[in-house]
Amino acid sequence: MVSIMKISELSHETGATLATIKFYLREGLLHVGERSAPNQATYGEAHVRRIHMIRALTDVGGLSVAEAKRVIDAIDSDLPLTRAFEIAQSAVSEHIDPESVDAEALNTVDSAIAGWGCGPEDPGRLAAARVVMNFRRAGQGADSGWFARYAEAARLVAEADLDLVESRSGLAAKAETVVVGTVLGDALFAALRRSAQAASTVRRYGDPGRK
Amino acid sequence: MVSIMKISELSHETGATLATIKFYLREGLLHVGERSAPNQATYGEAHVRRIHMIRALTDVGGLSVAEAKRVIDAIDSDLPLTRAFEIAQSAVSEHIDPESVDAEALNTVDSAIAGWGCGPEDPGRLAAARVVMNFRRAGQGADSGWFARYAEAARLVAEADLDLVESRSGLAAKAETVVVGTVLGDALFAALRRSAQAASTVRRYGDPGRK
Repeated sequence: MVSIMKISELSHETGATLATIKFYLREGLLHVGERSAPNQATYGEAHVRRIHMIRALTDVGGLSVAEAKRVIDAIDSDLPLTRAFEIAQSAVSEHIDPESVDAEALNTVDSAIAGWGCGPEDPGRLAAARVVMNFRRAGQGADSGWFARYAEAARLVAEADLDLVESRSGLAAKAETVVVGTVLGDALFAALRRSAQAASTVRRYGDPGRK
Repeated sequence: MVSIMKISELSHETGATLATIKFYLREGLLHVGERSAPNQATYGEAHVRRIHMIRALTDVGGLSVAEAKRVIDAIDSDLPLTRAFEIAQSAVSEHIDPESVDAEALNTVDSAIAGWGCGPEDPGRLAAARVVMNFRRAGQGADSGWFARYAEAARLVAEADLDLVESRSGLAAKAETVVVGTVLGDALFAALRRSAQAASTVRRYGDPGRK
């Protein structure tokens, strides 16, 4: 694999257009390359990775460039991991007004996440309560068993996320994994849930294609 | 709770504007009310539930009205549950071109979901492989342990989903739960994962607010 390249090669390697790369450089999302001539710079593998990370944030995570910048800045600034997680999470989470969720929904969530030590303003708690409200309004009862099983699975996934982060060496690499994992983890889980549902449905109800 | 209401009361009860309700009626997303006078119809709890379901599909699931219609039609047409799942899933999933994912990413996914019996065109499998590719490109190694733990959690959640569906009486109610659960389940899991990450991060690394 090429490890030192011109901007045109960086474009070819990543699939990002020259205009996009120059935009990332201008906005400070991408570190400037090493100057090799008055009007030329060279780039390396770190630039390739960073471009793919930006794309993951914007294309998969749906972040705006300004939000991606905030998350990237968190990686580059050696913040404590707890803060890096907070910033990555808040970037990919909708802000929920605590007043917009009702006490019944909050109670359902609090029962499911009892013992986690989440504060009343925890964004995940509020977002989960909003889903519970939508679920109830769509005529689906408050199935505390279903919520509790989701919470248990979420706990397992979060532990896997944290173990993955711990396996990285150095704060910058850990923060990168926090950011990429937070954004791509949602998409990964949703995809695997689809496959698992398909597998379980066929096992329980049979394959409609074979009827 | 009011169980028979005029369209204005239906609007008040659901928060949907009169224009929106008339649009849903015209597009066939909502069953017409019972005619009570030449120019008046009455609506019931089923209409309230249906409006909230449409909103869950469009606002939370991000479906277009045309996609929501396709999903709603699946509920109204007594399809086998396997088909209802397929339709709900395909509505909330991006279509992935099998040619766009590489063999290495597919292998990673196949190892994680071994024994599930998913076919090569399974949309969840392809979507998961795309995430694996994005993950690798963003400089994150192929962490088969992380993927496997996600797969195991997804299996638990899918079983919870199917148990929830089975708890409903009648095919129409089951299909409603399939649709609502498929769409809202992603949002619920993502929210709970945020809370679980926050809880695990504080437990492992301490609370930055208390430093």
